[in-house]
Amino acid sequence: MFKIRSLVTALALASSVSVASAWEVLPKEAPEPADNATTPAKVELGKILYHDPRLSSTGTVSCASCHNTMLGGEDNRPNSMGVNGQTGGRSAPTVWNAAFNTVQFWDGRAASLEEQAAGPVTNPIEMGMKNWDEVVARLKTIEGYQMPFERAFGTDTITKDAVTKAIAAYERTLITPNSPYDRYVSGDNSALTEQQVRGMEKVAELGCTTCHSGPAFNGPGVFQKFPVIPNGYWEAQYHFSKDKGLAEVSKKQADEHLWKVPTLRNIALTAPYFHNGSVKTLDKAVTLMAKLQLGKDLSKEEVADIVAFLNGLTGEFPKQQMPVLPGTLDSTFN
Amino acid sequence: MFKIRSLVTALALASSVSVASAWEVLPKEAPEPADNATTPAKVELGKILYHDPRLSSTGTVSCASCHNTMLGGEDNRPNSMGVNGQTGGRSAPTVWNAAFNTVQFWDGRAASLEEQAAGPVTNPIEMGMKNWDEVVARLKTIEGYQMPFERAFGTDTITKDAVTKAIAAYERTLITPNSPYDRYVSGDNSALTEQQVRGMEKVAELGCTTCHSGPAFNGPGVFQKFPVIPNGYWEAQYHFSKDKGLAEVSKKQADEHLWKVPTLRNIALTAPYFHNGSVKTLDKAVTLMAKLQLGKDLSKEEVADIVAFLNGLTGEFPKQQMPVLPGTLDSTFN
Repeated sequence: MFKIRSLVTALALASSVSVASAWEVLPKEAPEPADNATTPAKVELGKILYHDPRLSSTGTVSCASCHNTMLGGEDNRPNSMGVNGQTGGRSAPTVWNAAFNTVQFWDGRAASLEEQAAGPVTNPIEMGMKNWDEVVARLKTIEGYQMPFERAFGTDTITKDAVTKAIAAYERTLITPNSPYDRYVSGDNSALTEQQVRGMEKVAELGCTTCHSGPAFNGPGVFQKFPVIPNGYWEAQYHFSKDKGLAEVSKKQADEHLWKVPTLRNIALTAPYFHNGSVKTLDKAVTLMAKLQLGKDLSKEEVADIVAFLNGLTGEFPKQQMPVLPGTLDSTFN
Repeated sequence: MFKIRSLVTALALASSVSVASAWEVLPKEAPEPADNATTPAKVELGKILYHDPRLSSTGTVSCASCHNTMLGGEDNRPNSMGVNGQTGGRSAPTVWNAAFNTVQFWDGRAASLEEQAAGPVTNPIEMGMKNWDEVVARLKTIEGYQMPFERAFGTDTITKDAVTKAIAAYERTLITPNSPYDRYVSGDNSALTEQQVRGMEKVAELGCTTCHSGPAFNGPGVFQKFPVIPNGYWEAQYHFSKDKGLAEVSKKQADEHLWKVPTLRNIALTAPYFHNGSVKTLDKAVTLMAKLQLGKDLSKEEVADIVAFLNGLTGEFPKQQMPVLPGTLDSTFN
């Protein structure tokens, strides 16, 4: 929690600085940590593991089940469905461009993609494995995993550390560049429509960019409060405040309703919206953000312009070869 | 049922003919029906639909969830897990080389891949859609489906017929040629080990090929009885006879315990075994087939040789590009 606390402090400083001036293009490569350089062998292994449902107790749920790499990087559900049809209270964040998040999970409780990858596998309502020993033991029974682990990490390396590093290395390749917005900012004036440009200017004018700026529109601060302005009418409908965000982890009153600022990249593909997935449409989400964060009532035209702009943040999805998972010889699922 | 009855008659004739003479290589292309020629546009659309979980009520189960194209074409479970964690009584058959089956489903109740594809989508414990009108309505709300349907079938063509034809066309491309067995039969004497060749000869000598011959080892007959020889000991353990196979559909006593002969291709990757997925290992499956179908007790060495041969039926999985599914704009799942 100490790391997270210092980030919250950093946010408090950052949010007093004006950031609306710069529109930034999405980098084509993600930053990587010193102890997990991105290598082709790790990315290939990570892609296999990411799509392997045998990392779940029932053999039915992979990372990709909830963070779908064939879609907008999540599942378009209010909350995901884990093993045995179980559901939780939060909506799956997109994996696309997650490498540009400073922290992971809605409540930011993981400081890295590596740390995040370790969580759902042993969460009883997500992938349901008892513990990482069980995960490692199962992977060791799948003979075809030996070679890709060796190529990525050297001999005798099927460990929790290697699994999460490989998955994180793969996730760092899940970047969607060249959106209409990126092309516009890079000088192609025809890449956005007039309406989209109006929406873009409105986003800056309203102050959305105070929290949603930078290349992934998820900073410069890391955490923000939501909702900022209490509103009984919308609360009764959407129950936003039922979940206390960072405070659910830290147990500190000061952290109540603090959330990681989510990226706006590909947001047109990631309905439904908000941490509890309670809002089905993007125009409603925009309306509510203006009301609950900025205290502003937007006109229909303003909402339409902003939604048009947000549609311009849908990037190009990289072509990926479908992984061939090493075969299960004898079945271990019930 | 008339079609199926005539197939059963054909089986009765065929099974009296010796078939052990010919070892056949898997064709590189599957036969296609007159009314559904395989075209690149259909295959591409079919690949997208096959991997789209939005064809299920919860948005969590696609064709690929249970017939996994990244694995041995199924899920390595005794029975599959459909929407909301529900399970049925039968084990998912592999989609690889399913195009070479004369009929589909364990009980052969579908006469084509097209007919099969229509089933699970509206099965309440599989994909759980209410009916095909609901499926078509949902696909029509996903704007990005218009273009690929048009390319495959012409304008205004999002229909049940088009969906199932596209999925079947894609499935006809899921062929795994060039197994060690195929290379051996094509003249490469080093493609199988000595033990595998012993196993191959044993398979013919025992009479396994009476039912499991042809390029996919699933004919010439279409249906066979299982178990042929009643055995109280194994029945108490595996409950093979609880499910009456074709008779569950036809309601005819003569059809009791008749099953579609499953392919042996890639069988090393499709544990657990039999229609109810009750047998976890391939050596046990081989032992039981000899006992219950042929009345023979195999030695450990014979079982090992046959299993070695069956491992030689694992083919080459074609490289596939991961489909990019058209995005959901507003969420429709609960």
